[in-house]
Amino acid sequence: MASESRSIKMRTHLDCIPCFFKQALQAGRLAGADELTQKRIADELAREIPRFDLSLSPPEMGRAIYQIARKIAIHDDPYKEIKHKSNQLALGLLPKLREKVEASRDRLLTATELAIAGNVIDYGVKNSLEIEREAENFLNGNFDIHNKYNKPIFAYREFRQALGKAGVVLYLADNAGETIFDRVLIEEIKRLSKKSGIFYAVKDKPIINDALIDDALICGIDKVAQVISSGCDAPGTILGLCSRQFRAIYKDADLIISKGQGNFEALSSKDEPIYFLFRIKCTVVAMQLGCKVGDLILKRFS
Amino acid sequence: MASESRSIKMRTHLDCIPCFFKQALQAGRLAGADELTQKRIADELAREIPRFDLSLSPPEMGRAIYQIARKIAIHDDPYKEIKHKSNQLALGLLPKLREKVEASRDRLLTATELAIAGNVIDYGVKNSLEIEREAENFLNGNFDIHNKYNKPIFAYREFRQALGKAGVVLYLADNAGETIFDRVLIEEIKRLSKKSGIFYAVKDKPIINDALIDDALICGIDKVAQVISSGCDAPGTILGLCSRQFRAIYKDADLIISKGQGNFEALSSKDEPIYFLFRIKCTVVAMQLGCKVGDLILKRFS
Repeated sequence: MASESRSIKMRTHLDCIPCFFKQALQAGRLAGADELTQKRIADELAREIPRFDLSLSPPEMGRAIYQIARKIAIHDDPYKEIKHKSNQLALGLLPKLREKVEASRDRLLTATELAIAGNVIDYGVKNSLEIEREAENFLNGNFDIHNKYNKPIFAYREFRQALGKAGVVLYLADNAGETIFDRVLIEEIKRLSKKSGIFYAVKDKPIINDALIDDALICGIDKVAQVISSGCDAPGTILGLCSRQFRAIYKDADLIISKGQGNFEALSSKDEPIYFLFRIKCTVVAMQLGCKVGDLILKRFS
Repeated sequence: MASESRSIKMRTHLDCIPCFFKQALQAGRLAGADELTQKRIADELAREIPRFDLSLSPPEMGRAIYQIARKIAIHDDPYKEIKHKSNQLALGLLPKLREKVEASRDRLLTATELAIAGNVIDYGVKNSLEIEREAENFLNGNFDIHNKYNKPIFAYREFRQALGKAGVVLYLADNAGETIFDRVLIEEIKRLSKKSGIFYAVKDKPIINDALIDDALICGIDKVAQVISSGCDAPGTILGLCSRQFRAIYKDADLIISKGQGNFEALSSKDEPIYFLFRIKCTVVAMQLGCKVGDLILKRFS
């Protein structure tokens, strides 16, 4: 079942550094920091750069950066409003998303494409009509399913087969709002074959716009899966930061669906049967996978 | 003659910081630095960030950053090859550029549009056919001549009138390669009305891909203007770093044509009759001018 490609260890690249500053400044601004405070955030981050261990994965760095912004801007959850808005917008879409799945020839494929769409949407600047339109763009199947070395990057058939056989599925959430799209995919997974357990794991504490327990509950994920916290507060599921309880579920799962680039960066080198489902957001990851920014990935790397 | 808009002082923005790291890493790589050396460049830049005075203009910062990269990578001119290639590619275009001007209804307008095209082209990754095509895209006049507040940003008629009356013109060069497009514009300026002097000022020492005396001579600017060094080695003409001789010419010129965003950042607040001619390269400048990234600017701000 494993694909022919070897596992990939994502470490932080020097080209991630400009992005770290962008993220820190954005978090500071969302926390309402004035310009002087923003400058203090940038300065503190700059002081940390020479001490950073680039062998750590980007989500580990992301966590450290977010802590700097949060500490200096004195705000526990700068993305709180954005998450709230994302949930509200996404919730209104549920009937339409289900209609799309209902009307499609391959329900699971459509739900999978929608789940990636949900990962990509920038809810911060959109209304629900725009989100719907954006989601629709993902349903034409107009995307490359091979990378530039002609290796498959969207292994849907393999994924479908593996899902059909899996008893226990662990679903690793990414952002708030996206959870409603995840719900639609989970509904289809349950329709495909009987599951002995489906766990939906969210982050433990505020980190960027990642979904927390409340975000999952607002979107009603508890109606289709057991919602758990990973115990981790990085923008990617770093096992060393996860709870013992989560790690036990992770080890026992027959199949893991990992949403978003952050979870890919955290788990790409692991041996478990993980299907990564995300859109490539930056040149560093694109280079590593022989892909382009914007490519859709559905793939097991172990 | 002066436009209604007030002069603009460009200072460095916090959003410039990510870009500083990109520039430093790029310079390091072009200098052949290995990854460890690149990391040392990033670390040294990071240590400087808290000490940076953000009231300085971006070209002043750019100069400091470039010096860090050059010092650590131990390379005097990382962009030497790129500049050489740009010159060679551009030189081959001279007959075609002249043909385009010849065939146009308004020769000066076409030459002005080509001069901006020359500012934009990324010679590093292009062949001469691609450059020609890219230059042609600028000749359709398909660009906004007003910003979002309906203020003119491409004041061609005013520019043409001012040029007609000017006796002494000072032309501030930007990048290597671009010089050939500047030459075509200078040819048209001389055709418009008799000039008592045209000076073409380049940077004094290697700084990014900015044109130096040799780049101007290779493109034959000396056949249409007097080539001088500004004495400055920042990626923008910072008067405090210029030679006394240059400053005298600058003060006496009836009209100054300032090419490129770097020169705009250095001189935007000055009172002299400067027409800035560039394409907006980043959101910081776009925001300041009420424009979009990619907008073409031909405007006097004093």
